[in-house]
Amino acid sequence: MSASPTEAIVIIGSGPAAWTAAIYAARANLNPVVFEGEPVGTEIPGGQLMLTTDIENFPGFPEGISGPALMDRMKAQAVHHGTRVVSALVTSVDLSQRPFVLTPNYSAPVTAHTVIVATGAAAKWIGLDNELRLAKIGGGVSACAVCDGAAPYFRGKRLAVVGGGDTAMEEALYLTKFASEVFVIHRKDKFRASKVMADRVMTHPKIRIEWNTVVTDVLGDDPITALALEDTVTGASRELEVGGLFVAIGHTPNTAFLGGQLELTPFNYIKTAPWRTVTSIEGVFAAGDAIDDYYRQAITSAGTGCMAALEAERWLAHHGIGESPMLDNAVAPVMIADADAASVA
Amino acid sequence: MSASPTEAIVIIGSGPAAWTAAIYAARANLNPVVFEGEPVGTEIPGGQLMLTTDIENFPGFPEGISGPALMDRMKAQAVHHGTRVVSALVTSVDLSQRPFVLTPNYSAPVTAHTVIVATGAAAKWIGLDNELRLAKIGGGVSACAVCDGAAPYFRGKRLAVVGGGDTAMEEALYLTKFASEVFVIHRKDKFRASKVMADRVMTHPKIRIEWNTVVTDVLGDDPITALALEDTVTGASRELEVGGLFVAIGHTPNTAFLGGQLELTPFNYIKTAPWRTVTSIEGVFAAGDAIDDYYRQAITSAGTGCMAALEAERWLAHHGIGESPMLDNAVAPVMIADADAASVA
Repeated sequence: MSASPTEAIVIIGSGPAAWTAAIYAARANLNPVVFEGEPVGTEIPGGQLMLTTDIENFPGFPEGISGPALMDRMKAQAVHHGTRVVSALVTSVDLSQRPFVLTPNYSAPVTAHTVIVATGAAAKWIGLDNELRLAKIGGGVSACAVCDGAAPYFRGKRLAVVGGGDTAMEEALYLTKFASEVFVIHRKDKFRASKVMADRVMTHPKIRIEWNTVVTDVLGDDPITALALEDTVTGASRELEVGGLFVAIGHTPNTAFLGGQLELTPFNYIKTAPWRTVTSIEGVFAAGDAIDDYYRQAITSAGTGCMAALEAERWLAHHGIGESPMLDNAVAPVMIADADAASVA
Repeated sequence: MSASPTEAIVIIGSGPAAWTAAIYAARANLNPVVFEGEPVGTEIPGGQLMLTTDIENFPGFPEGISGPALMDRMKAQAVHHGTRVVSALVTSVDLSQRPFVLTPNYSAPVTAHTVIVATGAAAKWIGLDNELRLAKIGGGVSACAVCDGAAPYFRGKRLAVVGGGDTAMEEALYLTKFASEVFVIHRKDKFRASKVMADRVMTHPKIRIEWNTVVTDVLGDDPITALALEDTVTGASRELEVGGLFVAIGHTPNTAFLGGQLELTPFNYIKTAPWRTVTSIEGVFAAGDAIDDYYRQAITSAGTGCMAALEAERWLAHHGIGESPMLDNAVAPVMIADADAASVA
């Protein structure tokens, strides 16, 4: 274990919740450290917004802003106020002792009096190469209808939703406001969504349901032009021309690295108290999509990130910790001088 | 009662919660109406941020932004996406019938299928003329240490906190990070704060407590220079040189106009379900400082405003309402064409 001074507060994550928590903690002179992760598989630091080309609904940006630009600005703000950023992934934690011990994938373990877990969630994708490529370039493939569905590009188009749960129903109904027609593609012959939502979808004049159907390919260079579909009963193949694909088959909260030390919901989101970010372990707070299976918006994540920082700050004040932050620290900070120089990628 | 078409969604308020709710509702094609209020006494549309000269902790603005500018931008964004803004104050509501009936202080009543209450809270002030004047011009008087305390202006100064509750304790401890010395001024000889917080304040080397003391005047043209104090026991007067005054004697949520129709907390905040904005009446949602007696930040309010809009939108979808918004409406909209023209005042 490292002999470096114990941090007052360590924040794990690099989306709106993490940076907002860092802004508040830094302004409270707590000299926070953010472990922003590093690219692993399809995951990149910056969170799900790194896949969003144009955000129209983050309040304060009437002209819209790109996901990566918003993340750059939040990170720059956190750094400007005194946040130290480490580009490493926390792969395990020991919350059974105080101070807590966090182990990154390289460099020495770090100890901390308080921890904010803001590691977010990952949208589940079908897993097709062209699906992921088009999602990354904003080519008409998305995992969030509320985020992207209102974009001018999708208006008046034929749009497809893949999924059969409540989220898929909500996304399909939401998209009827903009689409000429919405196709709900479901691998089974029955939705697992609640009856009221399923009924609403099944009786909607703009929605057509493709039962027993899976997507075997996504077609189009940029943007998407069609889906290759396969009937799961007959095996028959066909193409469906669409101007957009919304994948609504669920999310996976990034909580596995906690090793079961925090109490989770049945779907592996971190449990917190009502309207509070306290977790099952005192001194550990959680924010963002890692605690939210319902709203999943940048602005809601930023809000809970702020809450977590205020609670951590008050917890430290209650315990008389953190009034003299440890400036001499063994974690090598990645210093970024200004907004223009800040880069999340 | 008006014979105009029933609105899908009416939002009451004009702070971060209201505008964020409007942005989301407008992007969901719900054609929302915002009743932004109008100047009454010390209250002005735009919420408490209209008294904040420089916001450093709203994520996305690394260079900081003034409160009025942020509100202008949020309002412009809401309008850009299709929000209609009415500059009138909703003075009463009837939530006992559906659709709900809202009565503004002028013009005809409006009916609505869903209502989002985002009317905020008002900080309590001592009530001195120069206190309010300096608060409005950013002259070193504030009702929120977390919002304003970290500003460079206050660093190294002698700062005063007025109050004796947990918030006053938290603000005093927070300010010790920046101040040369913190004076807690309390009219009684005992804090009503929790023991742990009171003890922390009373033993803090940077904090001095002025028991049995009231502020009778705030001195200084701009900024504040001193406080006139009076001993409540002896009646003796004296001056205390300070570089900042933080008034922490509580907030009053703006919920009186509801006439007790929504369930409130003992301190008159609107009760909602845990991590949801649903109130005691189905179809009525609440967000922002009207539901929050703990965090009270622009970013947390914006987050809950988003939550309320998503819940209202899903409630309407469940009930098959709002897919064809009523564009022909008797409420005269205040149309604002672009961000530059938008003005909250």
